[in-house]
Amino acid sequence: MKKNDYQVRFGLVVRKLRNKKNLTQEELASLCDLDRTYIGSVERGERNVSLINIHKIASALNIEVKELF
Amino acid sequence: MKKNDYQVRFGLVVRKLRNKKNLTQEELASLCDLDRTYIGSVERGERNVSLINIHKIASALNIEVKELF
Repeated sequence: MKKNDYQVRFGLVVRKLRNKKNLTQEELASLCDLDRTYIGSVERGERNVSLINIHKIASALNIEVKELF
Repeated sequence: MKKNDYQVRFGLVVRKLRNKKNLTQEELASLCDLDRTYIGSVERGERNVSLINIHKIASALNIEVKELF
């Protein structure tokens, strides 16, 4: 598995859970206090997301971090 | 909870699981292909660890990423 596959897999989970909650990227970004373009790049697997932002995303989605993995 | 608490909590889990596997920081670092000083700073909660390194640590500990959360 290429390193980047972790990012792609993470992004797909974020997108799936965001859609499940009926949130737009903009709404999720706002709940995370992050930029919409950043959330977009996370969902496309382009970001090596760090611990703090992983927690922000989980919190905004109202889920536990482990559900993102 | 302060942001940094996420790092501290993560570090404590890494340390606990590393000890459980009877690995030194140096041994874990070697298995992760990371520096021993980096693992030390992760365990002290000083690092905002990113997705790829989270996966490296889980893989070296032979556990699933979700077990780190």
